[in-house]
Amino acid sequence: MASSHPQAIQRLLDEFERLPGIGPKSAQRIVYWLLNSDVDNSRRLAEAISEVKASVRFCNRCYNYATDELCPICADPSRDHSTIAVVSEPRDIAAIEKTAAFHGVYHVLGGSLSPMDGISAEQLTVAQLMSRLADTSISEIILATNPNVEGETTAVYLARMIKPLGIKTTRLASGLPVGGDLEFADEVTLGRAIEDRHEL
Amino acid sequence: MASSHPQAIQRLLDEFERLPGIGPKSAQRIVYWLLNSDVDNSRRLAEAISEVKASVRFCNRCYNYATDELCPICADPSRDHSTIAVVSEPRDIAAIEKTAAFHGVYHVLGGSLSPMDGISAEQLTVAQLMSRLADTSISEIILATNPNVEGETTAVYLARMIKPLGIKTTRLASGLPVGGDLEFADEVTLGRAIEDRHEL
Repeated sequence: MASSHPQAIQRLLDEFERLPGIGPKSAQRIVYWLLNSDVDNSRRLAEAISEVKASVRFCNRCYNYATDELCPICADPSRDHSTIAVVSEPRDIAAIEKTAAFHGVYHVLGGSLSPMDGISAEQLTVAQLMSRLADTSISEIILATNPNVEGETTAVYLARMIKPLGIKTTRLASGLPVGGDLEFADEVTLGRAIEDRHEL
Repeated sequence: MASSHPQAIQRLLDEFERLPGIGPKSAQRIVYWLLNSDVDNSRRLAEAISEVKASVRFCNRCYNYATDELCPICADPSRDHSTIAVVSEPRDIAAIEKTAAFHGVYHVLGGSLSPMDGISAEQLTVAQLMSRLADTSISEIILATNPNVEGETTAVYLARMIKPLGIKTTRLASGLPVGGDLEFADEVTLGRAIEDRHEL
């Protein structure tokens, strides 16, 4: 059946349906909302989308998303730069920040070790993490990878490399649902897991 | 708490959260998806948003959304131009088109009569509908306003004006949940309601 929508509307519906978690009904609701609302709303949304792809890069130190050399967390002198939480993806940082249970800095691996998918330490920012650890002021590494097979494998691998350097190496506490994704943990559970971290 | 996101990312999160049905988790999921995906996805989405506001206007005949003088339905010679379904909003057209039970054309009122909200016939496209009815080839008007108080009021009001012209005037059949919105009816129920329409 040919679409009954004008082409410009059908095109926008198609683009919204492409986004994760947006089905045909949600897309239609959003598009009609944009059509009915002030042109400023649409302009700001379109600009913000273009701007994010034009300006966002990786932090030179921790590989989080950044718009400058350093991300806002690495650039913040009030953070505890002696404690580094190692995470798989930038979205895991957002999840941990929401708990307000952690005041250190981060290191984003860019994935997890997965021999099945052919992802080895060379594809991750492991070498960059090890060179950060040459800084003698670093007192603790929290391995905050996901509590699933790949995340545990990655944590054990990193612990074996870091412990010989004499740096305290901890893992997020159990309490997180095993087999799940850190991104979807509720804030209380994830906050508890940070407080209960244990040495490997 | 200050945002831990770079400003460009926080701005895009804010813009997505402003959209209907998008909460903080959905916004984050979409933004990280855009960050990880090809720049073409973002460019096409931003362009489609700008384009829709720049090019969409109202159909000169039925007041549906259109990019030309006439909307795609009014411009389609294969539709039955002697049968007009009168709806409150353009989104109701999308709902009826999905049933594939109607092959006529539409008239969008731009709302429903609502003395409580101060919406009278002058705020709607009632006069424009009446002047369309001067065309003697028109054989039936289906009053497809919502099955709630405002929609029923509007249907009764229009029926009183149209029936003296000798044009067959019908209303969508019961079967639609009373008090609900036409936009959210399932396709089978709405299709049945079109087939079972009755004369007022």
